[in-house]
Amino acid sequence: MPVSNPSFSHRLSAAVARCRNPVTVGLDPRWEQLPAVLTSGGGSASDRAVRAEIYATFCREILDVVHPLVPAVKPQMAFFEQLGPPGMTALANVIAYAHERDLLVILDGKRGDIGSTAEAYADAYLGANSPWQADALTVNPYLGDDSLEPFVTTARQRAAGLFVLVKTSNPGGATFQDLVADNRKLFRHVAEHVEHWAAQSADETGYGAVGAVTGATYVEELGELRQAMPHSWLLVPGYGSQGATAKDVAAAFDSNGQGAVVNNSRGIIFAHARREYAGRFAPDQWQRAVEAATREMIDQLRAETNVGRL
Amino acid sequence: MPVSNPSFSHRLSAAVARCRNPVTVGLDPRWEQLPAVLTSGGGSASDRAVRAEIYATFCREILDVVHPLVPAVKPQMAFFEQLGPPGMTALANVIAYAHERDLLVILDGKRGDIGSTAEAYADAYLGANSPWQADALTVNPYLGDDSLEPFVTTARQRAAGLFVLVKTSNPGGATFQDLVADNRKLFRHVAEHVEHWAAQSADETGYGAVGAVTGATYVEELGELRQAMPHSWLLVPGYGSQGATAKDVAAAFDSNGQGAVVNNSRGIIFAHARREYAGRFAPDQWQRAVEAATREMIDQLRAETNVGRL
Repeated sequence: MPVSNPSFSHRLSAAVARCRNPVTVGLDPRWEQLPAVLTSGGGSASDRAVRAEIYATFCREILDVVHPLVPAVKPQMAFFEQLGPPGMTALANVIAYAHERDLLVILDGKRGDIGSTAEAYADAYLGANSPWQADALTVNPYLGDDSLEPFVTTARQRAAGLFVLVKTSNPGGATFQDLVADNRKLFRHVAEHVEHWAAQSADETGYGAVGAVTGATYVEELGELRQAMPHSWLLVPGYGSQGATAKDVAAAFDSNGQGAVVNNSRGIIFAHARREYAGRFAPDQWQRAVEAATREMIDQLRAETNVGRL
Repeated sequence: MPVSNPSFSHRLSAAVARCRNPVTVGLDPRWEQLPAVLTSGGGSASDRAVRAEIYATFCREILDVVHPLVPAVKPQMAFFEQLGPPGMTALANVIAYAHERDLLVILDGKRGDIGSTAEAYADAYLGANSPWQADALTVNPYLGDDSLEPFVTTARQRAAGLFVLVKTSNPGGATFQDLVADNRKLFRHVAEHVEHWAAQSADETGYGAVGAVTGATYVEELGELRQAMPHSWLLVPGYGSQGATAKDVAAAFDSNGQGAVVNNSRGIIFAHARREYAGRFAPDQWQRAVEAATREMIDQLRAETNVGRL
């Protein structure tokens, strides 16, 4: 990702327009849920190098299927970290493979720290010498504005993006995010900071380098947050397995069908195990289930949201 | 770390009593600040495997110096992640080396995610098959109570510990942590949850598996939080380079001098570059500066806080 690249916002907007949909496929390899054809020779739990190679194979096969269809993928770091250094190597290989196939990579690490430690995290995942070279990174705002600034600086310098956790999709997201201070919920305070940085970095797309994670499972808040952060890309998790539908995410888009990407992890990558697909695909054709699930989600979004205008 | 181990709280309390001080040495290897004798042959910035080995050497030499003196060390993950998979291997080696020297390892990763992803992070760093096998992990509460529960469950099952970010030491920590909801600042709400889990898991030490990160730079809040979380270990960063003194952290301890550990990173590991030590140690004797700085901090805590009663 050379610095002479167009901005992340520009690249994401162009990719969404080209694919005519805003789907990001979440790469969350969980050993127990992988297609049996991949894991049957997978060795013991302690055989991390073998498992890491199988994770990489699984992800590469998904990328082969989805790259003509969607603009971006979102690897979930936890599952790669679980396998130790070989898992981190597999992650780097998966990201490189995605880039070869013109997919943008939003790395889901939810990092956050202070001062020079935040700089180190930003450099680790977005920097010029990054072993991973993600296009964007998810970050956690709890440590405050000065903890996010080093990420913002690096993202802008490197034409990369950030997605700050604002309103997460889990039920317990309300515990702290919904506390009301100065007549606004905590997540609205975070949204104000995100919008500030997004507006500062907005380019010809109308959007900036700093976006927000806004769960699809809170429908009303999603519309409010779209209004409150007009310059921020929204990364919307919670579609599918977590219960949100295309109708639920309609409020995330602007009038052109831009400004948001919607993530689906398990509903796509483990589609072979979905009840409604039972018997439809042979065990060694799990990739066809991935494709069917991806196309189904794209169709639903086109039918129910502004995405149809892309 | 077999599950038949005594609890983390028990082990930490015993180590603090044995060393008669609550110092944790932060392992934050920053390339530019390492002693020149280590980096002079260190190759180019892209030579990550070489740098990772030098990070491991640097940390091992520090562990050789501090292991008879202090109860615990706190590796900062960001700096190891910056070097990619070889950095993560170095981290695993450093943790194993610390354990061989009877040091507890509080891994500073500030992780946080939802549901099964939080389980994966907990398993990655505290689980039975963890490549890193930390004794405790720092975690971020923004995603809410159900995002912390998988970490709490794993920590209790594995006799490990957690430190939840409550009040961080950076100036911008106030941005969100100090917002007032229901007449209490956000960090006090987080503290209530921490105390709940800590009380549930409290053992004969009076403390539980779930502690809190409470910055030394907010002196008044530190005393309040000691009162508000009587069953929680406090991990207190901000000593030294960030400006806090022994007097500032006095309120973190209980009447026996237990219940808190105080971290110092740069002030100890980069002591060779401290102005007040200029000319005192030859360049190839940087380890003696580490020892002097560690002993100085221990003495200051013994003089100014309840730690003297240990």
